[in-house]
Parts: sequence; C-alpha cells; structure tokens
Amino acid sequence: MTGRLAIVGIGPGSPEQVTPEARAAVENAEAVFGYGPYLDRLDIPAERKNPSDNREELSRAESALTRAAAGQNIAMVSGGDPGVFAMAAAICEAVEHGPTQWREIDIETVPGVTAMLAVAARAGAPLGHDFCAISLSDNLKPWEVVERRLAAAASAGFVIALYNPISRARPWQLGRAFELIATILPASTPVIFGRAAGRSDERIETVRLDKAEAGMADMATCVIIGSPETRIVERPGRTPLVYTPRFFPEAAR
Amino acid sequence: MTGRLAIVGIGPGSPEQVTPEARAAVENAEAVFGYGPYLDRLDIPAERKNPSDNREELSRAESALTRAAAGQNIAMVSGGDPGVFAMAAAICEAVEHGPTQWREIDIETVPGVTAMLAVAARAGAPLGHDFCAISLSDNLKPWEVVERRLAAAASAGFVIALYNPISRARPWQLGRAFELIATILPASTPVIFGRAAGRSDERIETVRLDKAEAGMADMATCVIIGSPETRIVERPGRTPLVYTPRFFPEAAR
Repeated sequence: MTGRLAIVGIGPGSPEQVTPEARAAVENAEAVFGYGPYLDRLDIPAERKNPSDNREELSRAESALTRAAAGQNIAMVSGGDPGVFAMAAAICEAVEHGPTQWREIDIETVPGVTAMLAVAARAGAPLGHDFCAISLSDNLKPWEVVERRLAAAASAGFVIALYNPISRARPWQLGRAFELIATILPASTPVIFGRAAGRSDERIETVRLDKAEAGMADMATCVIIGSPETRIVERPGRTPLVYTPRFFPEAAR
Repeated sequence: MTGRLAIVGIGPGSPEQVTPEARAAVENAEAVFGYGPYLDRLDIPAERKNPSDNREELSRAESALTRAAAGQNIAMVSGGDPGVFAMAAAICEAVEHGPTQWREIDIETVPGVTAMLAVAARAGAPLGHDFCAISLSDNLKPWEVVERRLAAAASAGFVIALYNPISRARPWQLGRAFELIATILPASTPVIFGRAAGRSDERIETVRLDKAEAGMADMATCVIIGSPETRIVERPGRTPLVYTPRFFPEAAR
C-alpha cells in the first residue's frame, strides 16, 4: 500500500502568509517532518511533529519517503517555498536514488511565498524586472561556480536575490560576493537586507553597495542586490520605495 | 487626508493559494483595481471592482493612487505576486513621477505565490537550484537585452523561468529564445510549459529543448527551461519528477 507525501511551503513566517492549501496539507497529515524551527510555527499536536536539524535534508527526505511508502499520509514542510533551495529537490533526489517503490508514492508539492518575494514586498518592487536567485552556500557546489554566476548575473543586468548568505560555517562568502559585485555595479546600487519579513522581529534595511557588509546579514536574511536600473523613491516620514522599473531606459516608451 | 493602497498578490489562480493576508486586504478595500480577469476571481461586490485592460498598468496605477490620496482604502490586485513583472513596480513608477502627495500614501505590498513557483511545484523541483526569471516582453525593453540575458543565464547554468512568453503582438520571441538557448544547452534539456497551475484547466507539459515550440505556450503560460544539471525521474503511472539538484556534480558530496 502506498501513501502520500505533501511537500509544503509554509511561507516566510507570518501565519497570515500561509495559504489555505498549505494549512490543510499540514493539518491532514499523520506525521509532519521538517527543520525544527519551521515545525515550531505549526499549530498541530506535538506527537505528529518530527523535527530534524538544518543540514540533514537528505536523511529527513528518506525518513518521510519511508513512512509514505508504508502507506501513511505524510507532510514535509519548508519555510518559504519548498521548491526554492529547499526540501522539494532533496525529495526528488532521494526518490531518484532510492528504492523503486518510492516512485509509486503520491507526491504533491504545495507552493508558498518564498523569502525574496516577502522581502521585496516590504522594500517596494526591487524584483520588478528580470532577476535571479542564487544560493551563496558552497557546501554543495564549488565557490568558483557561485562567483561565475554572480558575475554573469550582475553583468547582464539581473537583480540578484541571495539565499543562504552567511552562516557560522560560511563566514566570508557574502563579503566576497559584495567585493566581486562592486567591481561590476555602481557603488550607489541599492542592497536590501531583509530578515524575518512579515514576522514581529522583521528587519528590512537598504544601503548602498559600497556600504554593504556581511555582518548586516545572518542565516535568516535574504539579500537583494539591485541592478543598474534599480531606483530609490524617497518619501517623507516613510521608508523609501526601492524598485526596478518595468522598462529599460533605452527602450521606446 | 491620506488613505491607503494595498498592492495584493492573489496567487496563480486557485482560491486555495490565496493567503489570508491577501484575502483580508481585498475584502477591506473600498475599491479594488486590476486587470479584469483577476478581478473576476474575487468574491466581492461588483460595485467595488474597477477593471482595466492588460496593457494599461500605468494609468491603472495612477487611478488607484489618486483615490488613495483622496483618503480611500484601495486595493490593487495582481495575479501571482505583485512584485514579479506586475503592478508593484508600476505603482512605484507612478509615485516617483507623480504629485508629491502620493509619497504620503500608506502603501503596503502583500506578496503572493508567483506563477513559476506554482508551475515548478507541479513539475517536481526544477527551481531547486540557482535560477532566474526573465520577461520575454520587448514592449518595454529592447530585444537585444532579452537575448543578452538569456545567453548569460543559460551559459552560467541558471534554470530560466520565462514570463510573458508570447502574445498576439509578440508571436516570434519565444521561438527565437528557444533557438538561441539551443545553441548553448544540450538538446535533451527539459523544458516545462505550465499553464493555469492549480486551476481546473491546468496543463503542465515537459518536453526536450529540441522539441520545444512556441505554439505550446500562450499568454497564461510560464515556461521553465532547465539547466545542464536538471534531471528527469521517471515514475510508472505518474508524471515524471523534473528537478534541479541542490549539489553541483563536481562538488564533494
């Protein structure tokens, strides 16, 4: 008998940003797997929660698939959206390399509001035109690949959202990324540090690229680096609006 | 007296993918502006709806800001997320170039599930690693810029999500994009055509790059082009899982 595995995005943090579909998937599951702090957000009985540590994605995926293959209705939660640097890829990877019967499991992914969208919403519209999302973690890819992608994106005029910008084990990568990008983009390019968007401890800060420092971010921060087109609209008594226009300056309007 | 303008993402289409925050913002507004088909999705009295046409973003933004500046509580809706190729940037643009008092309006953006996340969720985890989002519309930027960004993204190993892939007024751009990318990526690269994800008329189709044709997309389609790392996991009796691994093949595992 084959069960079900829902891979569920619970959004950036506020319960008001959890979709009804995600809420139902969590409530209907017999057991819910995920990184501890994400499970802490859920209002379900403790005995259904199966927390695990941050760096255990693959073993967490395998545990959930094993239970689903045995016929249970399982949910796996990710903060934000599960498809963006999160559990959906780990589950697919486990299915590819796991026992054949895992391919028979009814797997459904429930999308959510990913961090860069929540941070962008607080700042204005920095992702209003072409943009990219890069994980700054070099745990699973060589740092040269990260640098090549940063340089390609900045040179081609993409706004850049950085996920996993910094951690105790990866203290220097974000500073190096700012240095690299400063060789390509103007010093005045806006850089947004967005932490805990939509939560009570939210902190959104915008600085110029030449004032951006790695120490302004932590593990829970999403960093958005503007393109040469990104603009700042000052407002009296309000935070400025940071936005990237829909049009390119040379295009006919 | 200054009012309020909420710029609200109502998700890709299913009411189950509208966040409680978005629902409340729409319900609390005295008047709701937006592209007609998006307003059609909302269960609010018809007299509060202020529909406009697809290509009228800036005048729609100005109308909403005028009403908010007069003290009203206004909502502006976008499908998906309002910060991704949608109304948030148009509002910021209107504020920058509009009367000073528009800068006093309480503007709040409510994020939503953007199309590429909903399509990716249906396909597996194609956005599981570094990716970018490009609008294929050359109404507001030169086509050369689009081509440069496509080439840069494909060459650097980003998965590419294409928004606004085709329309009656822009019939050839998507085919040209496939041709260009075929000179850079393997013929076997998976290409996902995702239409109306989460709605009753949903259609998700994955083909090889050398079989991808512009005619497989319409205005409401989000196209996701894999990277050289994107993989397909076949499943008996189920659609395959298309995913981009979290790791880079050369990295230590």
